[in-house]
Amino acid sequence: MVLLEFSMFPLDKGESLSPYVARSLAIVDASGLDYRFHAMGTILEGPLDQCLGVVEKCFEAMAADCGRIECSVKIDYRKGRQGRLDSKIASVEDKVGRPLKK
Amino acid sequence: MVLLEFSMFPLDKGESLSPYVARSLAIVDASGLDYRFHAMGTILEGPLDQCLGVVEKCFEAMAADCGRIECSVKIDYRKGRQGRLDSKIASVEDKVGRPLKK
Amino acid sequence: MVLLEFSMFPLDKGESLSPYVARSLAIVDASGLDYRFHAMGTILEGPLDQCLGVVEKCFEAMAADCGRIECSVKIDYRKGRQGRLDSKIASVEDKVGRPLKK
Amino acid sequence: MVLLEFSMFPLDKGESLSPYVARSLAIVDASGLDYRFHAMGTILEGPLDQCLGVVEKCFEAMAADCGRIECSVKIDYRKGRQGRLDSKIASVEDKVGRPLKK
Repeated sequence: MVLLEFSMFPLDKGESLSPYVARSLAIVDASGLDYRFHAMGTILEGPLDQCLGVVEKCFEAMAADCGRIECSVKIDYRKGRQGRLDSKIASVEDKVGRPLKK
Repeated sequence: MVLLEFSMFPLDKGESLSPYVARSLAIVDASGLDYRFHAMGTILEGPLDQCLGVVEKCFEAMAADCGRIECSVKIDYRKGRQGRLDSKIASVEDKVGRPLKK
Repeated sequence: MVLLEFSMFPLDKGESLSPYVARSLAIVDASGLDYRFHAMGTILEGPLDQCLGVVEKCFEAMAADCGRIECSVKIDYRKGRQGRLDSKIASVEDKVGRPLKK
Repeated sequence: MVLLEFSMFPLDKGESLSPYVARSLAIVDASGLDYRFHAMGTILEGPLDQCLGVVEKCFEAMAADCGRIECSVKIDYRKGRQGRLDSKIASVEDKVGRPLKK
């Protein structure tokens, strides 16, 4: 299991990107993988190949009508762990000693 | 105003990183900037120089006892906008037509 | 065709990472895809699925003996273009009006 | 000393970005810091505050006429080392046992 954070957007559609991001999030939400959406991207949790499969599906949907696309991905793998979408946050809050803004 | 997402961790302290991330989050939480903490990083909102100043403070605190440090930063600037930690999410949810997991 | 830049390293092996990076580069070099290696990562050029396939192979080779792995990926797609490992650099040098350090 | 890799581009100027990238590279080239330019970004070597200062200058030059800007930054700090723009590559090539494409 990995955490895979990604963001993806077209460069040839002007500065308002939410319609294109929404297209990706509909794919993420239907993927069956657990995820969290935040202001700078989306975090998936699952096997690496399934997470990359979601990124590819989002890319194909965007490439259907976009001439240039940028995508950044960050992967964090820790052997034998899952449920890390929540546990990583809890572990840091525990050490800081108070709730953080989420 | 920008959104600046960052993550920072030492490479020479083994695989359990939350004590080091907690050190950064204490600095973020005390900075006065609005922020959101998630499983793969922290998003700050503010003027670029103030956001970079927080990243530098976190780096200095980590470099005090760490021999190798990795940090990734992503910046999203949109002229004349603020409150985007929440509004970007709302705008995408509005287009998807249902609430997303956050 | 996309350009896909990636870097990947273990977090549980101390601060000297070149033996692990070398393992990935041997996979990259044998992949048949065109690539460039630089001080902060490797850039592949090819179809998205083939480029992601190389990243997955590198990940599997690293996960064989590493307990925590970080990987960052950046993708740049431009419809109908190839040979961009060189042409993007030439295009910027042309606008700057002099050779840049490469 | 750190290695700081960054890329920066406007989202509201269409898909041809080299004129904007060239503006940043002119700033980088005049900064006095050692650097390498590649197809997906630029790597600076220097003290963290000076490297971030170059990123800020590039941002200000771009924000002068761009309404939305994306920037990604990756920092690699290793205590007591310099000359790593070249030595990191040499160290990996040495382990692979043959020259890599650069």
